[in-house]
Amino acid sequence: MGLTIGVDIGGTKIAAGVVDEEGSILETVTVPTPPTPEGVVDAIADAVKEVCSDDRRIDAVGVGAAGYVDDKRATVLFAPNIDWRHEALKDKIEQRVGLSVVVENDANAAAWGEYRFGAGQGHDDVVCITLGTGLGGGIIIGGRLHRGRFGVAGEFGHIRVVPDGLLCGCGSQGCWEQYASGRALVRYARQRAAATPENATHLLSLGDGTPEGIQGLHVSQGAKDGDPVSVDSFRELARWAGAGLADLASLFDPSAFIIGGGVSDAGDVVLEPIRKSFRRWLVGGLYRPHAQVLVAKLGGKAGLVGAADLARQG
Amino acid sequence: MGLTIGVDIGGTKIAAGVVDEEGSILETVTVPTPPTPEGVVDAIADAVKEVCSDDRRIDAVGVGAAGYVDDKRATVLFAPNIDWRHEALKDKIEQRVGLSVVVENDANAAAWGEYRFGAGQGHDDVVCITLGTGLGGGIIIGGRLHRGRFGVAGEFGHIRVVPDGLLCGCGSQGCWEQYASGRALVRYARQRAAATPENATHLLSLGDGTPEGIQGLHVSQGAKDGDPVSVDSFRELARWAGAGLADLASLFDPSAFIIGGGVSDAGDVVLEPIRKSFRRWLVGGLYRPHAQVLVAKLGGKAGLVGAADLARQG
Amino acid sequence: MGLTIGVDIGGTKIAAGVVDEEGSILETVTVPTPPTPEGVVDAIADAVKEVCSDDRRIDAVGVGAAGYVDDKRATVLFAPNIDWRHEALKDKIEQRVGLSVVVENDANAAAWGEYRFGAGQGHDDVVCITLGTGLGGGIIIGGRLHRGRFGVAGEFGHIRVVPDGLLCGCGSQGCWEQYASGRALVRYARQRAAATPENATHLLSLGDGTPEGIQGLHVSQGAKDGDPVSVDSFRELARWAGAGLADLASLFDPSAFIIGGGVSDAGDVVLEPIRKSFRRWLVGGLYRPHAQVLVAKLGGKAGLVGAADLARQG
Amino acid sequence: MGLTIGVDIGGTKIAAGVVDEEGSILETVTVPTPPTPEGVVDAIADAVKEVCSDDRRIDAVGVGAAGYVDDKRATVLFAPNIDWRHEALKDKIEQRVGLSVVVENDANAAAWGEYRFGAGQGHDDVVCITLGTGLGGGIIIGGRLHRGRFGVAGEFGHIRVVPDGLLCGCGSQGCWEQYASGRALVRYARQRAAATPENATHLLSLGDGTPEGIQGLHVSQGAKDGDPVSVDSFRELARWAGAGLADLASLFDPSAFIIGGGVSDAGDVVLEPIRKSFRRWLVGGLYRPHAQVLVAKLGGKAGLVGAADLARQG
Repeated sequence: MGLTIGVDIGGTKIAAGVVDEEGSILETVTVPTPPTPEGVVDAIADAVKEVCSDDRRIDAVGVGAAGYVDDKRATVLFAPNIDWRHEALKDKIEQRVGLSVVVENDANAAAWGEYRFGAGQGHDDVVCITLGTGLGGGIIIGGRLHRGRFGVAGEFGHIRVVPDGLLCGCGSQGCWEQYASGRALVRYARQRAAATPENATHLLSLGDGTPEGIQGLHVSQGAKDGDPVSVDSFRELARWAGAGLADLASLFDPSAFIIGGGVSDAGDVVLEPIRKSFRRWLVGGLYRPHAQVLVAKLGGKAGLVGAADLARQG
Repeated sequence: MGLTIGVDIGGTKIAAGVVDEEGSILETVTVPTPPTPEGVVDAIADAVKEVCSDDRRIDAVGVGAAGYVDDKRATVLFAPNIDWRHEALKDKIEQRVGLSVVVENDANAAAWGEYRFGAGQGHDDVVCITLGTGLGGGIIIGGRLHRGRFGVAGEFGHIRVVPDGLLCGCGSQGCWEQYASGRALVRYARQRAAATPENATHLLSLGDGTPEGIQGLHVSQGAKDGDPVSVDSFRELARWAGAGLADLASLFDPSAFIIGGGVSDAGDVVLEPIRKSFRRWLVGGLYRPHAQVLVAKLGGKAGLVGAADLARQG
Repeated sequence: MGLTIGVDIGGTKIAAGVVDEEGSILETVTVPTPPTPEGVVDAIADAVKEVCSDDRRIDAVGVGAAGYVDDKRATVLFAPNIDWRHEALKDKIEQRVGLSVVVENDANAAAWGEYRFGAGQGHDDVVCITLGTGLGGGIIIGGRLHRGRFGVAGEFGHIRVVPDGLLCGCGSQGCWEQYASGRALVRYARQRAAATPENATHLLSLGDGTPEGIQGLHVSQGAKDGDPVSVDSFRELARWAGAGLADLASLFDPSAFIIGGGVSDAGDVVLEPIRKSFRRWLVGGLYRPHAQVLVAKLGGKAGLVGAADLARQG
Repeated sequence: MGLTIGVDIGGTKIAAGVVDEEGSILETVTVPTPPTPEGVVDAIADAVKEVCSDDRRIDAVGVGAAGYVDDKRATVLFAPNIDWRHEALKDKIEQRVGLSVVVENDANAAAWGEYRFGAGQGHDDVVCITLGTGLGGGIIIGGRLHRGRFGVAGEFGHIRVVPDGLLCGCGSQGCWEQYASGRALVRYARQRAAATPENATHLLSLGDGTPEGIQGLHVSQGAKDGDPVSVDSFRELARWAGAGLADLASLFDPSAFIIGGGVSDAGDVVLEPIRKSFRRWLVGGLYRPHAQVLVAKLGGKAGLVGAADLARQG
């Protein structure tokens, strides 16, 4: 196989790109994400057709979608942000674009991208954590994506880390993504800035001056500048992220964890405390090899590249 | 391959058995577990030699041991109950018995036994939970035992379910096995009997009359007899067990869970509340197929049979 | 002193009543709660003037208000539902009605009402819990209302019972009122009905058929009718309420707890499990006298009667 | 009244001292704590008689004892360390020494001592926390010791701060003293030193080189020397201590907290983070006066001096 197309469905825009066997993106098209479920299907098809030029042969299309995708990689069982319930996405796109389509959970696609062409190269057993607005995950075991019997494995964000804890959009309580995600980071910063504004003068100055005005980028900047509340907020996030990695090590025992998503852009400000917390909570740490904790390399392209490559794998 | 030998190392006795390709045990030998680490090695070898009769050809030996076993299935990195640290168990036993030896984590061996010859037949993606004194686990993915990169995957008992929770023998806090295991069950019953003895008159009468005298078998019997504290203790255990299964479903997405170990002998008294709790906490339960929650079939033989079969697989 | 007026400021209406020395309400006036902070002040004054008839001498006015009231019982430091910040309520009302005014926290007023004329009669050390939409409290020590050095004691609803727990309107997390209150009860019922609708058919039929349509009265009715989800929801609430009472017993050591508020209208459906949970968690229960757990007697009138009586005490 | 005697019953020694009206100790006698319950009674009497010299008139004796003391201040209902159950300590000592005796909970006595002659001077509403091996407390409301209806108020150590948390000697789980006490401090340090020994080289060098050999004094010294694990251990203790103070402020609303006990000897190393944590968790902190968080002044003498003064009060 040669070239394939990867599609990434974001909250505000849909990106389609032609990807070669080395994971390089040759061309990209982005379109705004339409507000209706059917509109999104059309927009995906349009973007795919647009990115196909006459002089290149495309072998297949991989679509990364948030939510549950069935084990046939054809139907979106449930999407959190788009009103898709048992949506036969594969069939619909194939009919519109005339190419073979594979649908994949977006965090799985991103994990695959990092495994194949990013931080996971050289590892066969990798667990990827995407710390974006929420927390997503993907699992590579023995060089294969672990999708689970019904296609819905790797939903790390919703394991329960605090009994009777914070309400989650999924309807449950205490889900990991309530404690380790971009949204959690902002909550930590706002709570701390509200309780002790004198420790957050710099952070508050980066936004509109109020705790409610604090955004994720402010916290990242604040941490780099040494703002105490920002640093402490990253430390709190890292406390939960690292403890969760320790649990995943007990369960999956990978050779490496890859931390991606917007939060990971902060670099060592967040990576170093995550590594410390992981080490602190790893059970039996004196008697076992330790998985590495790596930062993702592909940034926001991981999902598109991964989806394209998964389509190539067939 | 034809016959293999499986070895199960228990706290009080070591069992070795000849197992055929259908998982039937043809002959068994048990010897007391010696108090010294080296004594255990000798006792394993002796038991293996004793169970080998002249008229049967044995192809290999599988040894199930509690603790971390390395990815080469040769060395016990750490054992919780025997003072083995980086113990080259495979080599030592092979030298003594003249047969090829495979070492495996005991809960992995039990999981494999159930997968091949017990409750897991017909499933390719199975997660097994052994509720014994502690909580052990084993993972089958796509018909293969998931051992992890370093051999120490599936340590379910030590994922953290309560931050800052109960101290665990592993040095960490809030480990799942402190809340879902035979030891937890007894603690629940003793605490409740101490706080409200009037609700535990029957349960107390099954032991020596004191809360401290309550043992696991008393709670099982009490629950069958309708003793309120016993029933409530199983319900508490099930609350934690089911919530943990829901997390494992989010992570692994198996088609079936198998619940084994001594606690599972109580049958529906514990299985039904576990199923309810699992259903209660399963994230996205309305939009995904549900894994079955099955009771183990092989009882205390699962580890021996599974170890023998893993040796056969080579 | 003879007659005094008590005022109760609710979310939808303000009630003013003339109360005699035996706690009997001779006359009541209710007016709608205005939307603006200043409008509420006017409405209180109007209601007080309206309930004053010519042929009765009124000695003083007691106003119960949600929020922090200062130690001089004059200023509302902070109100959660009305935009009062350092509001000189005593002065403003006195100027308008020409009577001496005392301002009191509404839960304190209700506690005092129950102590003097309700379930607390015969006790000198009483802790009252009001399980309404939220959770309020009042403390009587040695026959005196415990207001604290700054007037803000007895804020039971916001002690932390779950570290990193549910977000509270107060900005903190894990506050008791998120787990033991009318709002918590409804959440428990909705979560359970959503996860296992087959156990909530009766409860769902009492509302509009959806989990989101379940209201507190439905859960109370459902529990009386034996609906499993309703009963279980009350039990969950009671689990948290009773554990909190056990903590308050360790701190205050009263002779009685009084449980009031709308949730307590369910009677033994909620009281009995609270008593059991209290007993279960009471530390040192075998070696100390146990406080009684009583249900409030004055219903929704406790606050008005208590405020009037506190005004009488001067 | 003039001179009284205060008695402090410690785990290793019993101290009796003559105290004047200004809280000055004129003379002290200490004897080893006998191993039997009756032996302790005798030793108290002997120490009291020994400290009485001919030329001073003693008016009364106050005895501070760990455990529950009844509301008549006569009987120890339950002692955690001595096998006293409904022990009529007042009568027994009075018979032996011929003086009027008052028995008081030891943490209450220490709180009273600090209130009268130590850090609490000038405050009428004080909550004292003794961070010794465990966590004890005492409450002063309006200048009076709050003993509760049955004499057992102020048992701060056993309020539940973590549901399903650490086992406590009291039989319950998640008690505050498991997270904020000298014992907790040592546990924090040992756990951290075991998980990350490279961060604890200095701390480990203060003891015998092993995590298990770390004692409280080592952690105090280590923190003063800037050892990272020691500092982090104090911070963890302070996190829990401060959050608990915030709860006590919601309940009691004192003008000051006084932190005593051996842990408080570390001074600002522990006080400053406690103050920060208190401030962080105080509910409604922007709208209410804040209680001061003071360090105790009387050290190990607080209990003896307080018991003597309570005896004087009659």
